[in-house]
Amino acid sequence: MTEDRSSKPALDAAQERALAVLREGRRFLLVGHVRPDGDCIGAQAALARVLEALGKEVRILNPDPPEPQFDYLARECAYAAYAGGDVPDHDVCVLLDISELDRCGALAEPLRRSASRKVVVDHHIHHGEPWWDEAFIDVTASATGLLVHRIAAALEAPLDDVARAGVFTSLVTDTGWFRYSNTDAETLRVAAELVGAGVEPARLYRAIFQRNDATQPIALGELLARLEYHSRARIAVVSWTLADDARLPLRDSDVVLDVLRSVESVEVVLFLRESQPGTCKLSARSKSEFDVQALCSEFGGGGHARASGATIEAALDVARERVTAAARRRLEAEEGEREEVA
Amino acid sequence: MTEDRSSKPALDAAQERALAVLREGRRFLLVGHVRPDGDCIGAQAALARVLEALGKEVRILNPDPPEPQFDYLARECAYAAYAGGDVPDHDVCVLLDISELDRCGALAEPLRRSASRKVVVDHHIHHGEPWWDEAFIDVTASATGLLVHRIAAALEAPLDDVARAGVFTSLVTDTGWFRYSNTDAETLRVAAELVGAGVEPARLYRAIFQRNDATQPIALGELLARLEYHSRARIAVVSWTLADDARLPLRDSDVVLDVLRSVESVEVVLFLRESQPGTCKLSARSKSEFDVQALCSEFGGGGHARASGATIEAALDVARERVTAAARRRLEAEEGEREEVA
Repeated sequence: MTEDRSSKPALDAAQERALAVLREGRRFLLVGHVRPDGDCIGAQAALARVLEALGKEVRILNPDPPEPQFDYLARECAYAAYAGGDVPDHDVCVLLDISELDRCGALAEPLRRSASRKVVVDHHIHHGEPWWDEAFIDVTASATGLLVHRIAAALEAPLDDVARAGVFTSLVTDTGWFRYSNTDAETLRVAAELVGAGVEPARLYRAIFQRNDATQPIALGELLARLEYHSRARIAVVSWTLADDARLPLRDSDVVLDVLRSVESVEVVLFLRESQPGTCKLSARSKSEFDVQALCSEFGGGGHARASGATIEAALDVARERVTAAARRRLEAEEGEREEVA
Repeated sequence: MTEDRSSKPALDAAQERALAVLREGRRFLLVGHVRPDGDCIGAQAALARVLEALGKEVRILNPDPPEPQFDYLARECAYAAYAGGDVPDHDVCVLLDISELDRCGALAEPLRRSASRKVVVDHHIHHGEPWWDEAFIDVTASATGLLVHRIAAALEAPLDDVARAGVFTSLVTDTGWFRYSNTDAETLRVAAELVGAGVEPARLYRAIFQRNDATQPIALGELLARLEYHSRARIAVVSWTLADDARLPLRDSDVVLDVLRSVESVEVVLFLRESQPGTCKLSARSKSEFDVQALCSEFGGGGHARASGATIEAALDVARERVTAAARRRLEAEEGEREEVA
């Protein structure tokens, strides 16, 4: 065990204080963000089981219910969806995968009013002043579930099957199933431990990622039929209208983004989708140094350098033309810079 | 280190004898199978570096050159492709990812004639009598590269960057990037060790899996436009003619198989591809208990229960109809059995 322990990041004073609050608390409320993703849902399942193993009372409350793909966790944990009014009585509120209270949606206001101590467990960068009581934050961690794993180890609390499935869910959903650059040694070491203790990767892959309905490959085919390349196939653009969606609802846009990124020449993928008449959602992905966050901020959006989004008030054709032109301009400017350096 | 060592499978007497031959040998020839895959190529890179670190002379010789996607290894290791005649002088021949000499293609005959000692390093089930001098076989190992990792540890040979990239390549290509059921704790633990020592998963993912040319998403779109479902979308069938291929060469069939398997109801995916006029290649994949090996054996083919293939002498339409009918029949028979048991 020596190797594993020593290679785990040491806890800092702030994290130790957060642990003390977890040790002392009696009645916990675990809260996540709007449209909770796999990391949020998985980290909640794991922390709920860990706290329960320590004799605590635990409730989970989110602004939205979990997606059906996480039903193997939802069958074991009661994920309540906030329906208005006061939040349940509790003395410690743990916010998972979230460090801005506003990302709790409708839950933000009642939580702000509540006198409970607030503990943030998160791996996102937080801008502005800390508003919480305590925080267990590490922006280098691949997933919030990884932080819950560290917390369980520090509290010497055992992980049961549900907690293990929760942590594994966090790791695979936030690392693109170990493909993204945040996949580090700790992530894989913890995954190894979980699989050694009974987690079945193939089963969870099927549960999470093989849940599409039969229309999805047909929608994907239609989407690909309108694929446009620009700048010598370094930019790939696809779009989907409200009329398309009425006929053939597109649920999973990750697959088309993946397929387009699999093209060697492609550096930037732009997916535009009409969300209501005159409004489009842009999803932008980068495989290279090209910064899609900078691109999306031109349109009032943001995110990360490699994955960003924006909402654009324009007809789909207009939005597509503007975004494509902006991406081409940025790509050419980047090339110019590179040539100057060379 | 205690935990890692103890959780590694102990070596059996046969494996110890194989190690002795590796220790004693001076001039090695590492040989793989026809159309060497990532596991084969990766295991060769790793074993070559390990043996060289021990002062041995090593050559790699395969019936075919590596695919371009493995160029990051091919730049570092000289993968010779057999072009006829005698094989280079050597005293030990190590066959990697292969336990049937015939799978070496044109290399089988000259190797049979050579007086060198033959050592098999493999994770496939071998039928029939052992024909080799020594073998390091473990059919429970996820990849041959994992066996090379065990060999390196047993020989106390260091892994350099190329050896680490080789082992990682083996692991990810043979486990479907840690998604298949052969992804065990040892596989993930070794992956963690490799990443801790500098392997970058995102970089290797890009090198191996993001190498398509720009026509591939268009071909995928066309393929999906002809998708047929049968038996309440439990069977998905796609097909591709020679004429399609002349217009739009389809290189990567894994993506379409993946997309179709992502449909929750789909248990069986059948992909038929005309290889020459009047001949079709069938690729069959199963997500459930449905045995595609049994299905393919009806058509003179075979493979594994979840991934099999066959070559069918028939026009594409005829072949598609026959295979689909056979799959429906088997699915219904299976249902009948299940009802009887229940």
